[in-house]
Amino acid sequence: MSVTSFDPRTGAVIATVADTSADELQAVLAAASAAAPQLVATSPAERRTWLHAVADALELHRDDLARLADQETALGLERLTGEVTRAAGQLRFYGDVAAEGSYLEVTVDEPTATTPRLIRTNRPLGPVAVFGASNFPFAFSVLGNDTAMALATGCPVVAKAHPAHAGLSMRQAEIAREALAGAGAPRGTFAAVSGHQVGVDLVKAQEIAAVGFTGSQAGGLALWRIANEREVVIPVYAEMGTVNPVVVTRAGAADIDAVAKGLVGSFTLGSGQFCTKPGLLLAPKDSGAAQAVAAALRGAEPAPVMLTEAIAQGIPTGIREMIAAGAELIAEVAPAEGATGWAAPAVVLAAPADDLTPGSRLLEETFGAVVLVTEYDDDRALADAVRRLQCSLVASVFTGGADDVQAPGVVALLSAKVGRVAVDEWPTGVAFTWAQQHGGPWPATSAPAATSVGAYGLARFVRPVAYQSAHDAWLPPEAQAANPWGLPRRVNGVRG
Amino acid sequence: MSVTSFDPRTGAVIATVADTSADELQAVLAAASAAAPQLVATSPAERRTWLHAVADALELHRDDLARLADQETALGLERLTGEVTRAAGQLRFYGDVAAEGSYLEVTVDEPTATTPRLIRTNRPLGPVAVFGASNFPFAFSVLGNDTAMALATGCPVVAKAHPAHAGLSMRQAEIAREALAGAGAPRGTFAAVSGHQVGVDLVKAQEIAAVGFTGSQAGGLALWRIANEREVVIPVYAEMGTVNPVVVTRAGAADIDAVAKGLVGSFTLGSGQFCTKPGLLLAPKDSGAAQAVAAALRGAEPAPVMLTEAIAQGIPTGIREMIAAGAELIAEVAPAEGATGWAAPAVVLAAPADDLTPGSRLLEETFGAVVLVTEYDDDRALADAVRRLQCSLVASVFTGGADDVQAPGVVALLSAKVGRVAVDEWPTGVAFTWAQQHGGPWPATSAPAATSVGAYGLARFVRPVAYQSAHDAWLPPEAQAANPWGLPRRVNGVRG
Repeated sequence: MSVTSFDPRTGAVIATVADTSADELQAVLAAASAAAPQLVATSPAERRTWLHAVADALELHRDDLARLADQETALGLERLTGEVTRAAGQLRFYGDVAAEGSYLEVTVDEPTATTPRLIRTNRPLGPVAVFGASNFPFAFSVLGNDTAMALATGCPVVAKAHPAHAGLSMRQAEIAREALAGAGAPRGTFAAVSGHQVGVDLVKAQEIAAVGFTGSQAGGLALWRIANEREVVIPVYAEMGTVNPVVVTRAGAADIDAVAKGLVGSFTLGSGQFCTKPGLLLAPKDSGAAQAVAAALRGAEPAPVMLTEAIAQGIPTGIREMIAAGAELIAEVAPAEGATGWAAPAVVLAAPADDLTPGSRLLEETFGAVVLVTEYDDDRALADAVRRLQCSLVASVFTGGADDVQAPGVVALLSAKVGRVAVDEWPTGVAFTWAQQHGGPWPATSAPAATSVGAYGLARFVRPVAYQSAHDAWLPPEAQAANPWGLPRRVNGVRG
Repeated sequence: MSVTSFDPRTGAVIATVADTSADELQAVLAAASAAAPQLVATSPAERRTWLHAVADALELHRDDLARLADQETALGLERLTGEVTRAAGQLRFYGDVAAEGSYLEVTVDEPTATTPRLIRTNRPLGPVAVFGASNFPFAFSVLGNDTAMALATGCPVVAKAHPAHAGLSMRQAEIAREALAGAGAPRGTFAAVSGHQVGVDLVKAQEIAAVGFTGSQAGGLALWRIANEREVVIPVYAEMGTVNPVVVTRAGAADIDAVAKGLVGSFTLGSGQFCTKPGLLLAPKDSGAAQAVAAALRGAEPAPVMLTEAIAQGIPTGIREMIAAGAELIAEVAPAEGATGWAAPAVVLAAPADDLTPGSRLLEETFGAVVLVTEYDDDRALADAVRRLQCSLVASVFTGGADDVQAPGVVALLSAKVGRVAVDEWPTGVAFTWAQQHGGPWPATSAPAATSVGAYGLARFVRPVAYQSAHDAWLPPEAQAANPWGLPRRVNGVRG
């Protein structure tokens, strides 16, 4: 058994990666399991040096990696070169976040007349299985956010190669293993495996303590179900995505052509293959939004090429289903005549807001450069429509500025449904910073309080242990009275 | 349909509570749903006054409540009077924790050349369903930790009355509703419902955003499965408990009689009906632990009376199953002749450590005053045995003091399996403080990083939202630049 990757522009074979054998998987799991207690004993500052070493190695190979990625993804050299830099930046950022130490939440309660001494700290969960996404072959793949965060907290990682960029996955893994070994990380700290059934076996393996996943609803839910059927159920952090809505307020519709142009730029970015793609525009009645977006699409003339044959085939199917559910196709840029590989159309559909009813296909994501435009009658109709949407990762609102009386209510309305609300900005970009939240309620993700981007994502891979009346020397270093690593702590309820 | 509660000492009927009708449940859910946005708009300091009002009302009715509780639980007036005080203390503590504001994790990233302004804060999830436990009719029931934490974060609560203390549940709910109304909380902030099917319908209701549960494996897993089958899956925080191990080191075995006496006090406390009951003693070979515990039990002469008929009937069944799995009954205090109601034996069993194999009945909890004693040959045999145990809420280790060379390794070994490690103290008591962790990996709980006691438990009922480039006035108050509530925040990565 093996996995084959293709050039999306031509359909030509790029790489063939043999499936990890059962024996190899056992060896990988045994090594991860053996590494786990060694990683527990390291300091966040030490692991930070490992992550910086992996980042340096990625950047050293940036051009080669981008070229290999472009062959397997057709996302373009410029974007992919930038994405290597981003992935390296993420690795360093999460290493820095761990070294800062707040994620350990060290909490000390001195004994009182009625309560014992209790000292609490967060401990790494153990080996983490990471499933990356096709659409970010660096930033959300084998060395993406999940891997960086898990390593930062002291969890060994077993990453599954993505079949759509299997060659690049294994090359990145090779670079990471060399860099980690050079930086002094224990053997077993990181490994990559390949193969569909291998991925299933990985989630079932008793050595695995948690799963990070970025990708489709079908993929994420399948892994979540497998994990829930284990004898020891483990957390699955699946970032799956749904339809991300964009609301235009009445004041925001004053320059609807500018909004329409921005929307087209955002929903066709990366051939519409972003989990943060705006999939639904809710504009005021008689704003002319639908025609403006249609005109903007025709003017932009995008030429989407999809990551995989399955994604490319899903687009006409999705469009047909949306039309059957009541949408009207109002603009389409078809692939150029003679286009090879996995070229796909870019499409604008329109539907009445009343058609956005629970269970309707119009509320489900069509991955790719497809957007639905609707108009709302008044605030109440807008609120009704938003409440009927699936929850999502992000929403945007385009407003008339600080004095827009409608906008604060829309922000509050959207914040009840999503993990992030962007004002007068498109939802597509996801900065990796302290305050970022890249998550959202079901079914956007499997864990509404978790984030897969940003400093708080480290919390997914640790769990607290309270030590009651333990002698100081028996505590983990971060919990000892001398605070040898100099990390922040809370003592008797007071933030230090 | 109705629920009937009984006097465990006699089996006499104490209370009959009619099941909440479908219409009543719909009204309760609608009120909770309507209250949710009103609670979002309140400050933690305001909700703190509500929680203090409920606490004051509980204490005002302390003696009456304890008497009613004793009729339905037979846990004794002294313990139950103290438990009312504890529940009141918890309500105040979680109100205070919310008012301190760290749980909001307000995080501000100022814009940079490449990243937008992002401001992150935790928002209440919405209405929470709370299922309390039979064994703590105040501290873990309709006004227990889960309810206090959910209200503190701004989530309305719909609590299900516990059938074993149905009368007390409804009386507490009445007191709470009056106190909340008097303190100015919106209608719908809190309600209680009763009935088995009503509980199932509650977890299925689309208005409910999360579930808090304390109780048996069977009950917790049933609710967890129901929640996972919803169209919108919601988090279930089930604290179920397993067998909590106690390790005696070689030095700790020097005074094995004292350890044995302490163990008997701990495993028979509350008739052995604690989720933190020590269920397994691992003592060094030739320490004489088994005979010492047997002697201590005979000397203590406990007279367990169980909370329900089902619990009482489960004890002889559990003992038979443990004997069939290889354990030997070495001491038993049978109920006094002519004992009525749900009297049960207190029992010490012994088994070789090698019999503690995965899947064995010896690794499963027998709720009640039942303990298993085993001896280990050496450190390696101890480590092997501990690794085979189910994960649990808590473990204790009894040592020879700070110089005990074996003890640090045992603490580390246990910390990989549990949420709390107690040193030279029994596991039974669970203080509600900042550093407490009352949780643990599957199957002790359904969410390994969550705690159902202690300040960090509030995190279960919120989820983060990031606001990108939003105008200051459009943000929730705690996220605004002026910081009107004066809560802690992190700005540009720096703890304030």
